[in-house]
Amino acid sequence: MNTGLCFLMAAKRCEIAELAQLARTSELVNTTGRLVHALQRERGLSNLYLAAADTPPAPHLQVALATQVEESRAMEQALRQGFNELDTERLQRGHGARLFSRIAYVLHGLDALPRLRQLVAGRTWNAQQATAAYVKLLAGLLSVVFEAADSAHDPEVSRALVALFNLMQGKEFAGQERATGSALFAAGRAQATAQQHLLHLIDSQERCLQVFSDFASPDVHALARQQENAHDLAELERLRRIVCTAPDGGALDRTLSPTWFECCTRRMDELRALEERLAQNLETLCKTQMAAAQRELRAWEALQAAPHVAPDLVANPQGDFFETPSNGHHTPFGPLPQAVAQGGPAVSDRPQAPQVSRSVLELVHEQSQRLQAMAAELDTVRASLNERKLIERAKGLLMAHRQLGEDEAHKLLRQTAMAQNRRIVDVAEALLSMANVLPPTAR
Amino acid sequence: MNTGLCFLMAAKRCEIAELAQLARTSELVNTTGRLVHALQRERGLSNLYLAAADTPPAPHLQVALATQVEESRAMEQALRQGFNELDTERLQRGHGARLFSRIAYVLHGLDALPRLRQLVAGRTWNAQQATAAYVKLLAGLLSVVFEAADSAHDPEVSRALVALFNLMQGKEFAGQERATGSALFAAGRAQATAQQHLLHLIDSQERCLQVFSDFASPDVHALARQQENAHDLAELERLRRIVCTAPDGGALDRTLSPTWFECCTRRMDELRALEERLAQNLETLCKTQMAAAQRELRAWEALQAAPHVAPDLVANPQGDFFETPSNGHHTPFGPLPQAVAQGGPAVSDRPQAPQVSRSVLELVHEQSQRLQAMAAELDTVRASLNERKLIERAKGLLMAHRQLGEDEAHKLLRQTAMAQNRRIVDVAEALLSMANVLPPTAR
Repeated sequence: MNTGLCFLMAAKRCEIAELAQLARTSELVNTTGRLVHALQRERGLSNLYLAAADTPPAPHLQVALATQVEESRAMEQALRQGFNELDTERLQRGHGARLFSRIAYVLHGLDALPRLRQLVAGRTWNAQQATAAYVKLLAGLLSVVFEAADSAHDPEVSRALVALFNLMQGKEFAGQERATGSALFAAGRAQATAQQHLLHLIDSQERCLQVFSDFASPDVHALARQQENAHDLAELERLRRIVCTAPDGGALDRTLSPTWFECCTRRMDELRALEERLAQNLETLCKTQMAAAQRELRAWEALQAAPHVAPDLVANPQGDFFETPSNGHHTPFGPLPQAVAQGGPAVSDRPQAPQVSRSVLELVHEQSQRLQAMAAELDTVRASLNERKLIERAKGLLMAHRQLGEDEAHKLLRQTAMAQNRRIVDVAEALLSMANVLPPTAR
Repeated sequence: MNTGLCFLMAAKRCEIAELAQLARTSELVNTTGRLVHALQRERGLSNLYLAAADTPPAPHLQVALATQVEESRAMEQALRQGFNELDTERLQRGHGARLFSRIAYVLHGLDALPRLRQLVAGRTWNAQQATAAYVKLLAGLLSVVFEAADSAHDPEVSRALVALFNLMQGKEFAGQERATGSALFAAGRAQATAQQHLLHLIDSQERCLQVFSDFASPDVHALARQQENAHDLAELERLRRIVCTAPDGGALDRTLSPTWFECCTRRMDELRALEERLAQNLETLCKTQMAAAQRELRAWEALQAAPHVAPDLVANPQGDFFETPSNGHHTPFGPLPQAVAQGGPAVSDRPQAPQVSRSVLELVHEQSQRLQAMAAELDTVRASLNERKLIERAKGLLMAHRQLGEDEAHKLLRQTAMAQNRRIVDVAEALLSMANVLPPTAR
């Protein structure tokens, strides 16, 4: 016969299993972050390699790109290994479905990487095409991290994952900013659409980094302050001003292209260092939370096994449940049974069971309150992920109603936002609120 | 090596496991509904039994109560059995923790039932005390149903569970209305606080039944219309008017007490019939969804096993991923590989693999879109559960800050709402928005 205490322990085991799963997912997120960084460098070098298509590629660039491709390959192998080690049989709940779908998508992108590299090496594609392809694959990789952040049930872990995801997403916008700016400087001519895109990338980047900052722990903030180089920041802002304010069709100083690239690269490397720290913290956090939950579970097991206490606690909890409290005590379950409140001499010999002097009903109550508080905090943390979800949904709506591909749908959203000088998320929200008045899906 | 298709299948297996779990949970919800109904009847009969404390209890009432207690016991055994059959080892994710905590709480309440029945049989407690005790236990049982509704990842199942939970909660408010009204009529004297409580119960009841109605399927609506007895409804409203509008301290016709009780009871039996239908539909729905998911999984397995198609589909999906669509086709993944789009002669022999003429990447894409649409719909459905969560959270806040028990916290919320003529949920929301300005927890 399952007693209340058995179900209390089952609840705790659920929490522990969830934390163990989170620890594994966090490892995967960390590996994903390394591949993302390698591919961002590869994208940057490919851009430089493709930029001056009218001259033979500089040998040092060829070497740098080849070296970077090797590094990306190693990171890719590590991530594929990580995917393979995922226990797809045990991760069997609703959320796993979304994570696995994202992984399936990413695997297709990774399979197609060799072909992309051929197209770059042979200069078959131009810088813009290559950038778009890398952006697509990186978006897939980031969506794996997003699902991980969205799946955590522990609010503290969720908080760390949300910080990490936003940092990674912000860094990816910084990478796209680097690519777009490099291309503009290299072309030697300002172009209004690209400039607007650049401003949007800066804006999206800053919003991501703001969320990261809101959720990051004090030690990460300290590291960020320590790393911050005012000179570099000023240089970046100066270059941003130059590239963004030039009149459409006006000249841009081509020689600033490498300066821009290096300045952006330093910034991305700094962000990567923060990412490493966050990933470490996340690992530690999972372990700490799991250890605490396990300690509590062991204490309850001891409680159940304690022969002197068990009869009162486990088999005879009646009388508490319906009683109204007589002493203003905070528990709604009334005064504790005498034997339990005082503890027997045998009980004090069991330091491993600190809860021994409280009733099981009180434990049940505390556990419920704690789970509820956790759920409330979790809702707050996850709210910061809603922005992305709104955009994804609006994209889905456009794809269904206007027969667009995913890229086209995103482009349409972005262009509408730029034309109306609004944020993409606001356009997405407006679109979704109009969903009812749209004609039914044509398909 | 895990390919994209493997992860696609893993995602589908997650969905199937989730649906299987939902089917088991739904069974438990159904069993819970039966016990709730039995205990509501037991509460009603106990009320009548305790009402006329100055005269010896009527023998027919004693018999009816004893019979009902027997029925409740049988339902309780069935539910305990259901709890025991829960696979607490496999239900190992964040959500299980909340469900199991609720079950632990309920088990304590069930353990305390015999004592409550003694207190009723010996007329040690009055009707109000006994009602409060039954209300507490029933609230625990309903919270099990709430967690089940809140845990479903399939929007259609979630919709059915939300309808069922709101119907059950509405019916419980109807039960409390019956008890409060009976006590007022039996006392023969109107009392303002009880009258206000009655109005609140009617209001809460109607809001629950509105949500139920919003989420119920057409056949349930049809059954509701078919059952509806305009004469009974008019009678209930007439009695409500009488009991609610009498001036504080004014006389009430004692002989209307049994009329009121029977009128309310007929209504609750009607609601119970709707509940049965909803529970049946839920069972069918889980089975249908599971069968569909399994069919799809089998089709994919066939796809993977098909030797003529597999090389193109599984091992060589490159070239699609980064290609921009050239033909305005709705997939963002470009034209299908020739061999796949046309299908070989061997392929047409395999009717069990209908997806054979589409690329795996397209499947991945469709699956992602579907999961995302499901998540969006799920958010909409679950929003209707937020009201209850807000109230729970506000209660938790009061318990922590004012050192109140759960019952007292709920009472305080309810009284504040009554005094300010606002809904409890509005008071809860106002309280939560003030959480930051409250003094830190005293504990």
